[in-house]
This record gives sequence, structure tokens and C-alpha cells, in this order.
Amino acid sequence: MSKSKITKSFVRSITHSLSKKSNNQYISSNKPLSFPCLDKLEKKSDSLRPDVERKKIPNLKFDVNNTITIEQEIPIKPIYNRIQQGFELFKSEEPLFLDYGGVLPEFQIAYEHWGTLNKDKSNAILIHTGLSASSHAKSHPKNIKPGWWENFIGPDKPLDTNKFFIICTNVIGGCYGSTGPSSINRETNERYATRFPILSINDMTRAQNRLINHHFGIKKLYASVGSSMGGMQSLAYTQEFPEEVGKVVSISACARSHPYSIAMRHTQRQVLMSDPNWNRGFYYDGIPPHVGMKLSREIATVTYRSGPEWERRFGRERVHSSPSLCPDFLVETYLDHQGTKFSLEYDPNSLLYVSKAMDLFDLGSKNRNRASTTRLETQKKLYDDTYDSDANRVLKDMPINPKRVRSESEEEGEIDLLDGLKTIGDKEVLVIGVRSDILFPSWQQAEIAEKLKEANIKFFGGTGDNIKHHELSEAISQYGHDTFLIDLEHVGGPIKEFL
Amino acid sequence: MSKSKITKSFVRSITHSLSKKSNNQYISSNKPLSFPCLDKLEKKSDSLRPDVERKKIPNLKFDVNNTITIEQEIPIKPIYNRIQQGFELFKSEEPLFLDYGGVLPEFQIAYEHWGTLNKDKSNAILIHTGLSASSHAKSHPKNIKPGWWENFIGPDKPLDTNKFFIICTNVIGGCYGSTGPSSINRETNERYATRFPILSINDMTRAQNRLINHHFGIKKLYASVGSSMGGMQSLAYTQEFPEEVGKVVSISACARSHPYSIAMRHTQRQVLMSDPNWNRGFYYDGIPPHVGMKLSREIATVTYRSGPEWERRFGRERVHSSPSLCPDFLVETYLDHQGTKFSLEYDPNSLLYVSKAMDLFDLGSKNRNRASTTRLETQKKLYDDTYDSDANRVLKDMPINPKRVRSESEEEGEIDLLDGLKTIGDKEVLVIGVRSDILFPSWQQAEIAEKLKEANIKFFGGTGDNIKHHELSEAISQYGHDTFLIDLEHVGGPIKEFL
Repeated sequence: MSKSKITKSFVRSITHSLSKKSNNQYISSNKPLSFPCLDKLEKKSDSLRPDVERKKIPNLKFDVNNTITIEQEIPIKPIYNRIQQGFELFKSEEPLFLDYGGVLPEFQIAYEHWGTLNKDKSNAILIHTGLSASSHAKSHPKNIKPGWWENFIGPDKPLDTNKFFIICTNVIGGCYGSTGPSSINRETNERYATRFPILSINDMTRAQNRLINHHFGIKKLYASVGSSMGGMQSLAYTQEFPEEVGKVVSISACARSHPYSIAMRHTQRQVLMSDPNWNRGFYYDGIPPHVGMKLSREIATVTYRSGPEWERRFGRERVHSSPSLCPDFLVETYLDHQGTKFSLEYDPNSLLYVSKAMDLFDLGSKNRNRASTTRLETQKKLYDDTYDSDANRVLKDMPINPKRVRSESEEEGEIDLLDGLKTIGDKEVLVIGVRSDILFPSWQQAEIAEKLKEANIKFFGGTGDNIKHHELSEAISQYGHDTFLIDLEHVGGPIKEFL
Repeated sequence: MSKSKITKSFVRSITHSLSKKSNNQYISSNKPLSFPCLDKLEKKSDSLRPDVERKKIPNLKFDVNNTITIEQEIPIKPIYNRIQQGFELFKSEEPLFLDYGGVLPEFQIAYEHWGTLNKDKSNAILIHTGLSASSHAKSHPKNIKPGWWENFIGPDKPLDTNKFFIICTNVIGGCYGSTGPSSINRETNERYATRFPILSINDMTRAQNRLINHHFGIKKLYASVGSSMGGMQSLAYTQEFPEEVGKVVSISACARSHPYSIAMRHTQRQVLMSDPNWNRGFYYDGIPPHVGMKLSREIATVTYRSGPEWERRFGRERVHSSPSLCPDFLVETYLDHQGTKFSLEYDPNSLLYVSKAMDLFDLGSKNRNRASTTRLETQKKLYDDTYDSDANRVLKDMPINPKRVRSESEEEGEIDLLDGLKTIGDKEVLVIGVRSDILFPSWQQAEIAEKLKEANIKFFGGTGDNIKHHELSEAISQYGHDTFLIDLEHVGGPIKEFL
């Protein structure tokens, strides 16, 4: 008897039995699904309501042996409503003119440092962070929490504090002490919110240079080092101040953002902006858009960490015996956890501005020349007392033409990038890429290295040997984009050797 | 003079000039950003309000020469409020017992067909669709619109209607005529919404088998053919009814869902479920969650189409002269367009259920045995008059343990999959994969083919030669996952030859 025949006859007997029941009562089996994940978010919104007195909420926690304990959770304030400390502040009262026409009349930069600056100030290394990191790269007496590069910095570590004076800053646009959208605009005494001007990666480095050059009086960095967005900044700083950088390290970054990365960041921004609590950026006195932030971070996490590692770590394991539309697979609970953890730890507007700066990153010469012109125009307009920034103009609701394709050819793009990299082409550069990275695929680091070599040959008559390119195979790292945070041996090792 | 010196002196002169101005008036340069993309969505929500009389809204459109014309836009109803036609309906009044404990007391399947069924009913090919496709694979007199596989079906085409009788169905759980969450539950006379039971891919094929076997009286399909989710179904149908399938074609699919794909679908579902208009699935009389649907589709589109093609097509081109947090890069306007187009064309609850079914897909023997047991238990409980489905139980708010890892070893998983594929191991199978696919990476099709070969050797004493594996290199296709919809030559060609 075939499978289908068994089913058929069996089903018929059951159908017969069912039809005897009154009022189709058997159908009531399909009760509405429940959504504990949404209940949780609604509760969280309630606890974050500024007008409601905060209560302690019971919270279940696992310890390492998977024992469940009930803890009292003290409702967390969003980052921009907390007192932050453990870093130093540099304030610049000179305006910062920005690549896309905006201006910061004054700004501050949060920074931390390790090791000792030598007499001739020749041993300083500036570390650039990823999108959402603070200046806290390593623990120190003023902040004993482990930093995001804790094991990479210290005596005899890849960034050796016996030899070097290491500085790390929070980027402008961020929310860990440096001026960003959550900062108070001194004119209105209100937070900037989405009145903050659009930033570029190069703007961030020009702000950093005030700290390095004006404050510390460092005329030339021993090295500029960074990963992910920091790897962009590391190159951008050198492009902006070629005379002021010795060596360059750029890890898991690119020389210009590519459509897939832009697309992934686009979805993160749109998801966040669609949270009604985002309120077009003016949420600082209301419920924070923690749902949009959580979702946005979940998408980001897929791009940071997925790869062969997830196969091994999560497989197809589920946490519930019955399926659910709430987190159900182990990998889903992981994403949920990552999203929740981040949702109040970073300022939503900072995420939008810094993420956008990454999209706009392009070391090509046209982009750089346009930016210089724009900055000079802004300065001129300000000087001429007729300033009217175009960067924040009201955009028209542009209809979309789905057939439109790029107007610049790929060849033109290549030449443009080569020209833009001219000022970096004579440096000692180390480029590191990771094969399992899907956000900044390893061909993008190969592109940086190839173009820098070309630049060295073309503009300096060199051999290109000054450009080192190091690629971690999948056999070596399965951690994807986040490898730079994790792999002390294979990322830290080459850095130590290079420096 | 170094760059920084120029900037410094220039900045100082400006600062001096600025300080003369009264009331910091220069700061007002940073006006709030505008958000036309959000304005548009709000307008759309208003036009979809069921209690508001619909008005015609002016709409800007491009023609091929980029000329702007103003058109009247007739507000679109969501798919579930439109009259749908152009397909045939098969109704089954026998209950369908489901893999995760639910039951459909009755259901219907929308289907379309092309070519002629021969006398001994031996020339039928069943085509399985991707997640969001309807049964309309090809145009015909009842529906002249081009189908989703228009050029693949017809006389002398890869699916040759001179030889074969081609049938395509809308999956149960869908919204193009087959029973799904937007269908009326005959008990309550209301739509199922999230009272609909959780489905599996195998459930879908058991529903299809009623049409093929009970309705058409086809004892054995000449072939089972599908791409993406359809490629899962193609294998699942064969696993469920091994005696009733001749040849099998599975394109851009997998034998079990992998964490990255689950993660990407997870983010799409969570984004949709976070749209307040989703209302836990009960939106049919309100404003549809078109924003959540749009965002969800944008994320999906990244996984369907990104790849080398985007580099060539969009590059870093922007559509505005000044950057914006609304769609700005060409690739963003493309995603925005794809999201908008889809947002009312598919039922949001169908998306959740069908997407979830894809996550749950696993041809491994444990999963299949568990499902069989569950179905039999449901039948027994129903027969015993004490039915209480566990599939829809109220889930407890499980705390997340971020340290938890999978409990099954990779080796156990491999053996389980091999056992599960036993009944397919003796078929003629064609597996097609695409190197530029990031959603179902080509190693997953290689896995299907390898495991099927192993099954043929182990269980049937064969050589494995019955399993054909065809992989499209990046040089051949740059379209990623969607290649199966586009590449008639390199996907259609091998199908034609194989059939």
C-alpha cells in the first residue's frame, strides 16, 4: 500500500468522525499564535516612557550552568540620558567646515590614550574605531571595563604601549562624548537631532587632526590604524594629511563603498526611521526608537558575523518544541539578543549619520575635489555673510526611475580612485582582509592594495613593495567582518610585525 | 605650507569674522533634514485607511527618455481585497494534517496548466514556485499577463508544451487563490489571520498531491521541477511520494535551511511584525502594514539580487546632489522601488507563514519522522474527540541564553540528512546552483548533489551517476539568487536537456 493510500483511507475515516461533531468544533484547534517577543517590546516601551515612574521589572537570567535565576532589572536609560565618563575631552571652538556643505561652529572630541608620548612626539599611533565603538579601546584606571580592542593594546601587544603612545577617539557624529546629533546646539540650547549636518569619513579625520595636531602638537603620527569604518578613516586621515602620517594600517575596509554594503546599511536606516518613536529624529524627550534600533542591529549583525561560524555554532537548532513567528531557531535568539543589547546603547541619530558617512565614503579624486570646493564655498559664504548651506536643503520628492543605471563607466571609476589615492601611494601600508567577510568582501581590500601599488608605481616611480596585503583564508577565520575584534593571532600578529 | 596650516589660518580668520556676528546666527545653517520618503509613506497610509473615501493622487512618472509626466494614481487595494481570477480551483474537503500539529479541515489550491495531458497521464510536470509567486507561470487566454517563467514554458521551450502537461500551483499559505491566512475560516466566517496553523514545505507538497493524485488522477509525475522555495518543494514532493515522481529538478535551493538564510528571513519577519499596522496579523479591516512589507521586501531584494551585477549597474551613483537619509544612492532608489511595488501585492501574513516554512525546511530523517508522528497524533486525538493542537500553544517568554550552542554535532546532521534523502536517491535528479547567489550559496546545491549521490551508492548500490549537478560560474551569471527567473540559456538549457 503506498503512503498516499494510507493517508487517504485514514483521512476519510477521520473526516467521517469529524462530520459527526456539531458546529465544526474541530476547527477551533487553530488558536491565534502568541507573540511574546512583541509583548516584551511593548513592556519595554512602557518602561521607557518619560512620563511614567519607573519600576523594577523581574527578569530571568541564565548563569553558565543554564540555571535560571530571577533578577531585578533596573530599567536602562538610553545612552544619551546617561552620565558618561572615563575619557578626556578636547574642545575646538574653531568651526569645522564639512564635505557636504554643513558646518559645526564648535565641537568636542572624546579620547583616551595608553602608553607615553616621547619627547619628540614621534611615537603616536591614532586608532580609528568601527561604526558604533567608543574611544574605550582598552581598560585603564579611569575606566576599568575591557575595551573593544582590549587584547590588542598593551605592553608587548600588537599595539605595544612600551613603545607607542596610542590614542583612540570617538568620531564626531557619535554619542560617546564627541559632538553628535544628541549634543546640545549652543544656539538653541536644544539637541541637534536631525538638524545635525551630514558628515563624511574625511570630516571625522579633519576633526581628529585638531586633537592630534593642535592639542597634542603631534606633527606626524607614527601610524594611523583602523578596522572596518576605522579602516576607511585610517586611509582618509592619510589622504587629508599625507605629511602627517608615517605608516598606515587598514583592516576589513574599502577605498570606496560598494552597492551591497550601501544596500545593507540602507535597510538598517530605513527600518530605524520607520519606527514611529524615531519621530524624524526628535525623540530625545520621548520613548526612544528602541524597536527600530533593535531591528537595525539584527540586520547589521547578519552582515558582521554570519559565515561558516554560524553553521557550526547554531546549525538548525531550535529553542522551542513548537515553531513560532517569534525567535525560535537558536540563530534567531542570538540576533534578538544582539539587537536588544544594542538598542539603548547607541544613539539612533548617531547610527543614521555615521552609517550614512560610510555610504558616502569614496577616496576617488572627484569626490575629494568636490568636497574641498564645497568646504571652501561654505567658508567663503560665511565670510561673505550670506551663508546658506545647500547640504540641508529641502529635498524634493524625487520619483524613482527603476531603469536608471550609473552614468560613470567602471573604467572612469578606476582612474578616479587611482588619482584619489595618490597621496597615500608612497606610505608604508598594511591592508588586511578576511575571506569570510560578507560586508566588506575581501576583493575590496585587494582593490585597496592593488590601487595603492599602482599609485606608488605611477606617481612615485616605485615598485609597489611598500604596500603589504594580507588575506585571512576561511580556514584561518570563520568570523566574517568581526574577525578584527576577535582574532588576536591572525590580525594582531601582522600588525605587530608591520609596526 | 602644509594643508593643515592653510586650514588653520583660514579658519582663524573666519572665526574672527564669525565672532562679530550677533546671536550666533551662523549656526542656523543646519536646518532640520527633510524626509520625503516618510512623507510619502504617511500619505500612502492615509489613502489606504478603510474609513476614508479614496481620492486620486497625482503621481510623477518617468518614461524611457526620463521625461516627467503627471499621472493620476488610482489607489491600490491590497491583494486580499481584490477579486483574483485567471486560475482554476481545486477544493479538498478532507482535512490536511500538518507537520507541526495544526490541521486545515478543508482547503483549496489555485492552479494553472499548459499543454495537454496524454492518455496514460504520464507526461505531467509539476512546477513549484518561489516564496511569493502565484500559479501564473505563463500567460494563457484566461490571463494574458506574462507569467513569472514566461519564456521557460511553451512549445520547444525548456518546459516543452508540445510534449508535456505543465501544472503550476499557488502554495497553501499563499494569497493567490490557495488557502492561506487571508482565507475565510468557515467556522468563524472570519479570515484566519494568525489563527492559521504553522506550515511546512512538506505540508505544501501533500496539499499539491491531492490535486495531482485525487483530482487529475495522475499516478506518477513525469517530473517535479522548482527553483528557490520551489526547489525545496521539488525535493520534498519526491521525499513524500517517492513512487509518484519520475525526474526531479531543484534549482537554487537546499536540502535544509542554513543559519544565514534563516537569519535573513528572520529580520524580514521581525521588521514586518514590528509595523504597528500589522496588529498581530489582524489588519484585514484596517490599514495594511505596507511599511513593514516594503522594508521586508527591501531586505529580501538585497539577498535576491545583489552581486557583481549591482556594481556594474548602480556603482556609487547618487540621484541627489546633496546627501539625504532618504533614498539617495541609485541602489537605494532601486530597493525603495522594489519594496513599494511589493508592499500591497502580497499578503503580509502569507509572507510570515511561507517564510517560516522555508526556515523549517529540513529533509533530514529526524525532522521527517517527528512530523509523521505529530500528524498521526493529531489524527488520533481528533479521532479520540480530545483534540488539542500543540502547534498553537501559548509560548512562554523564553529568556535568551547568548552562550547556548547547537546540541547536535555536524556529523550527526550529515548522517541524518543522508537518511532523509534515501527515497530520492534512486531518481534522476538535476541540481542547479549559481555562484553569485548569496541567499542559497552554491555550496548548498553541492550539498544536495553530494548527499543524493551518497544515498544512491549507500541505499541502492548505484554509482551516483543519476545525480547531475550544474553550477553557473560568476562569469556566466551575475544575477545572484534571481538567476532562475532571468537566465533562459543557462538555466533553461540544462533543464531542457535533462527532461
